[in-house]
Order: sequence, then structure tokens, then C-alpha cells
Amino acid sequence: MSRKYNFSAGPAALPAEVLEQARDEMLDWHGQGLSIMEMSHRSDAFVSVAEQAEQDLRDLMSIPDNYRVLFLQGGATSQFAMVPLNLLGDKTSADYINTGIWSKKGIAEARRYGYVRIAGSTESEQFTRVPTQDELELDPNAAYVHYTPNETIGGVEYNYIPDTGSVPLVADMSSSILSREIDVSRFGLIYAGAQKNIGPAGLTVVIVREDLLGKAAAATPAMFDYQVHAGADSMNNTPPTFGWYLAGLVFKWLKRQGGVAAIEAVNRRKAAKLYDYIDSSSFYANPIAPDCRSWMNVPFTLANAGLDGMFLEQAEAAGLLNLQGHRSVGGMRASLYNAVPEAAVDALIEFMQTFAQQHA
Amino acid sequence: MSRKYNFSAGPAALPAEVLEQARDEMLDWHGQGLSIMEMSHRSDAFVSVAEQAEQDLRDLMSIPDNYRVLFLQGGATSQFAMVPLNLLGDKTSADYINTGIWSKKGIAEARRYGYVRIAGSTESEQFTRVPTQDELELDPNAAYVHYTPNETIGGVEYNYIPDTGSVPLVADMSSSILSREIDVSRFGLIYAGAQKNIGPAGLTVVIVREDLLGKAAAATPAMFDYQVHAGADSMNNTPPTFGWYLAGLVFKWLKRQGGVAAIEAVNRRKAAKLYDYIDSSSFYANPIAPDCRSWMNVPFTLANAGLDGMFLEQAEAAGLLNLQGHRSVGGMRASLYNAVPEAAVDALIEFMQTFAQQHA
Repeated sequence: MSRKYNFSAGPAALPAEVLEQARDEMLDWHGQGLSIMEMSHRSDAFVSVAEQAEQDLRDLMSIPDNYRVLFLQGGATSQFAMVPLNLLGDKTSADYINTGIWSKKGIAEARRYGYVRIAGSTESEQFTRVPTQDELELDPNAAYVHYTPNETIGGVEYNYIPDTGSVPLVADMSSSILSREIDVSRFGLIYAGAQKNIGPAGLTVVIVREDLLGKAAAATPAMFDYQVHAGADSMNNTPPTFGWYLAGLVFKWLKRQGGVAAIEAVNRRKAAKLYDYIDSSSFYANPIAPDCRSWMNVPFTLANAGLDGMFLEQAEAAGLLNLQGHRSVGGMRASLYNAVPEAAVDALIEFMQTFAQQHA
Repeated sequence: MSRKYNFSAGPAALPAEVLEQARDEMLDWHGQGLSIMEMSHRSDAFVSVAEQAEQDLRDLMSIPDNYRVLFLQGGATSQFAMVPLNLLGDKTSADYINTGIWSKKGIAEARRYGYVRIAGSTESEQFTRVPTQDELELDPNAAYVHYTPNETIGGVEYNYIPDTGSVPLVADMSSSILSREIDVSRFGLIYAGAQKNIGPAGLTVVIVREDLLGKAAAATPAMFDYQVHAGADSMNNTPPTFGWYLAGLVFKWLKRQGGVAAIEAVNRRKAAKLYDYIDSSSFYANPIAPDCRSWMNVPFTLANAGLDGMFLEQAEAAGLLNLQGHRSVGGMRASLYNAVPEAAVDALIEFMQTFAQQHA
């Protein structure tokens, strides 16, 4: 067996230690004679795993007591509908900030449930940066403000949390949760598909301020009502137990790394190294404004796009996997989530240097 | 490591061979240097796994070409809303048959979207049997007829498929799919949470006749629209990739057992043995009419309920796990899904005999 460096945008790399533990206890969890996957979600054993995972996430993110943590299904795409269905309440309008493909998906789905006001957009600049606080035109009567702290495809990321006054701030944190410290109390609701920094696909984490619960529109399916899930400790029906368990292992691993502050320092270094090299090279380019560059997803292009196929082929041969850019934008993309070690970035840069020398 | 016999109602036992394969390739799938969990759902490798799983399920169930197979999230509880949201169309009423707790849950959610007509119920007989075909009062103008072929909690199962004429028949097959041969062409739509006979929790399989697609109500969330999923080959967003992969391993395992006809013979034998013993004993009892007894979930009571705790404790010590009845009904329940070997039933009966002799 030989593990390679995996730059996939998601489902993405998981810590080898986590996979090793899951492997070792796959057939017999803690001597109980069965897999964690084969247990009732209401068994004492699974409930303890589930509660520990929540506590570890609370510790890692310093989640205040007046926030509920939900372990759901359906990915961010379900949240695109759940957010307006649950948070519009008696208001008719919500503010959305448009910074790329994922923002647009959220906007399109929200438009089916209410009036979406665009409070900021950098579309005219091809999403090469995010709006500054001063550029936001916020409606104080909006039900909430929705934004995408990190655009996984565009590779553009906020380096600040928008100030929305008393209007609840909602964030699609799928590709940036746990990558750096944030003040959860600044948010009304945070959601994240697990398959980047948390665990396997099929699990979605929602962190929601309690006062925002219980206002779902009348026709909201029970499974799309945050209050239903909060009232049942995320066990209104059978949750994705294996994903929840694996998320718990990732949280423990992250604690062993020193927590979010420690991984933030590593992430900052990983991203800086790669962007510094790209900027120093005339062979590679990244179009994003330096202060808006994503730490998690680094898109880059080659001076000669005709070499893209060869680059990917040789990278794979060198043990550097999944560097192809999203089908909608082309080029390359290196995703540097928490589980991608610094050595992977070093290896990537070394490969890029060699390739550039050969083809410049 | 010592695997025990697991009678959990769900999440439930999985074949040891399947868990062993998942364990062995957990860190390095087929020499590719990463876990199947760490791959993009759009990678060639994962798409081949996904397509093979679908083909194997089609083979196992002889699914006709005019049916789509969807691999979704959210469990049967999401289907309780998705069915009326997608199938009511321009009709206002659907027929539901009420045979227990799971039927009732489906009915309660459907009532939020249209008029639910009860076409049959055995509630006055405490759900100790299902209605006969002659007892069904079907509305030829109903949008569809919904029923629950097997009630996981009550342990009551249909030994026939209701004839609903030209009205589409919809079945919550969560706890009976793949347990016996069925004629899929008799159904408009079949759905099943995976966590009994298919794989881990967090995956839901839907088999739907193509002409029923594309009629979702206007406010249906995209993720609750079958047409959206069918149009994207279940990859409208990131699917639960690991669950899908594991389901594929279970389908391969089932083929190695000889397919559904072969496992049906084993299931028939397993259930017959246990019911025969219960009926022959004055210490144990099962309340369900013999021709409506579930092959998958066998609830039973002890003559003296005061011994329940001791029974469970000694059973667990004997390596027979998760025999406690559902919290809503008490007593015992042995779930005998496909992955529960015949030897487990033999061991259970032997234990029950010894316990009865000691306490009669």
C-alpha cells in the first residue's frame, strides 16, 4: 500500500490516522463484536460516539451554548432550500452576496422561496475578489444575509466576517470550516457539507443560534425543519451513523494537531508557499486578488493550456492526485484542506518547478 | 476480534465479507493511493463503482428499463414528503394503507401536502395482520396508493402485492427490499433506507417508473425532486459516496449467495424456524396472524415480562446482540435481515430454549 498526495476538492483527503483507526475497528468496534455501522443509532455506544463528536466540535470552534449543532444529510444543496424555508419567517426578503458558482447556486434555490436581494457582487470582475465591507449594501429589514466565505471552484475567500448588524449572518462554510479560527457568535447559522474538512460525503453539519429555530414555513418537509432535528438531537430519523463517527475521529485528530489555531498556522503556511511560488513563476498564474485568495482551493493555469494534459499525467505519475480544475473553469486546482500535509504542498511545488523548467 | 450475532433492527448487520473488503481497501482503493471516500464523486473510479452498483441492483431485482434507480440521502422519512410532493401532480388525493407505526409516519407527513384517504387499516385489530386485497377500498382517482410491505416495529408483512389497477403503487420497502423476489413492474415507486438490507445508514435507494418523474409541486426543494436527481444520475450534488460503494459490495455479496431467489429460501427457513419454535413454546409468544408474519422482524414476548432484563443480559453474554424490542412496544425483537446468518437463528433458538427451561 502506498498513499499518495490527494488534492481533491471534495470528497477530499482524510487524515491517514483516521482511516487507520476506522479500518482497525471496522469489524469490531471496541470489542463489542460488531461494526459501528451495524449499531442502532439509539444504542448507548453510538449515542456516546455522537455526543462526543458534538462536544469535540464545540471545543474546537468554541461554539457558544446558545447554538445548536446538528448532524444532518443532504449537503449544502439541501441547505440552499432549508435556509430560506426556516429563516425567512414573516419576512419576504433576504440579502445574498454573490462571489461565484456556489453563491449563485444558493441564490437560485432561495429565489424559489422569497425575494433575494443582491447585497454585493463581484461578478463584473469575474469574481477575482470578494466585496469589501464598505461595498456591501445591506437591507436592515432582510431576514438574513447569506454569503460563501470560501468559493471552492473560484478559489476566492473572505479575509473578514461581514458585519450585518442585527440581521443574522448565514454562511456556507463547506470548504473552509475548521480551517481557521472564527468567532461563531458573529453568525446566525453556519452550514458545511462534511466532505472537505470534516469527514466523508453524506453528512452535513449545521450550527444554528437557538432563537432562529421554530419559524419554518408551513409546507416545509419535516426533514427540512431545523427545529425537528434540534428537538430530536439530530435523530428524528436514522442519521448517517458512519459519517458522524468518522467526523468524530477527525475532530479528535484535529485536537491532537493542537486545534484550529494550530491547523490555521499550517494552512496559512501551505497556502503562502504555493501562492508565493506561483507569483514568482512566469509559467503559472492565479487570477485572484492577493488579499482574497483561498487557503483551501488554489486554482492556477499554465502559460500554455496545451500542456494541461501532460501536467496532470506527470503529476499523477509523481503521486500528486486530482489536480484538474473544475470542469466549469478548466486549468488546475490544488485543494489544501486540513488533511493535506505540508509535505504534499512541498512536493507539488517541486513538481511544478521541474515541469516549468522542462516546458518554459 | 470476535464477531457476535447481531439482531439489530437497523442500522443492522452487514455481511462480514463486505466489511472485510471495505477494511482491506480503506486506505488504498485498488492501488490508487487513496480511499474510495477521498475520491471525487465525478472521478472515473467512483463513477465506475456507482454504475456497477446500480447494474448489480438492476440484475438482482430484474428492474425493467423504464425504471430509474436513484441513490439518495435522507432515509424513508424524507421519502414520506418526497412521494406526495412528486406524485400528487394535478390530483389532490392519495390512498394510504395503515398497518402500523411506519405507515402512520408516512400518512402524517403526506397529510401536509394533500388529502390522504385511508384505503385500508388493521388498527382496530392492533395491526396483528394486514388487510386482504378484498378489504382494500381503493379510489380509482387517487394519485397513488402507498403501503408498507413490512412493518419493522410491528413485525407484520404482506404476503401479496396489492393490485391497484392503473393507480401507481408506492412501497416503503426499507426493511424488506432484497429479502424475497418481487415483480418491480407492479410498482410505480419503491423506496428503501439502506440500513437494513442494503448498506450503511445515510443512503436511500429509490426505484421509480420514468413516467412518474417531472411532476413535482412548484415549491419542492430541488433536493426533493426526483427529476432533478434522475437528470443528474444521482449526482446533482455530492452523493454519500462511501454508502453507495458499500451498497455495491453488498449487492456483489448477494449475487455470490445466489441472488434474491437463493436468499429468499434462506430467509423463509430462518423465519420459519424461529416462529415454529415460538409457537411450540408456552414461554414465548408472537401476536401476529401466521400468514402476515414478517420474515425480517420477529417480535416476541416472554410469559413473564419481569424476566425481560435478565433475558437481554444473558443473551448478550451469549453473543446474541440487540434483541430488545422497540421502545414503543417493549418485549423482544429479532431482526433477521439478509446478513444475519442461519447459524445466528439456530443459536438464538437454542438460547431461548435454555432460558425457557430455566425460568418456566
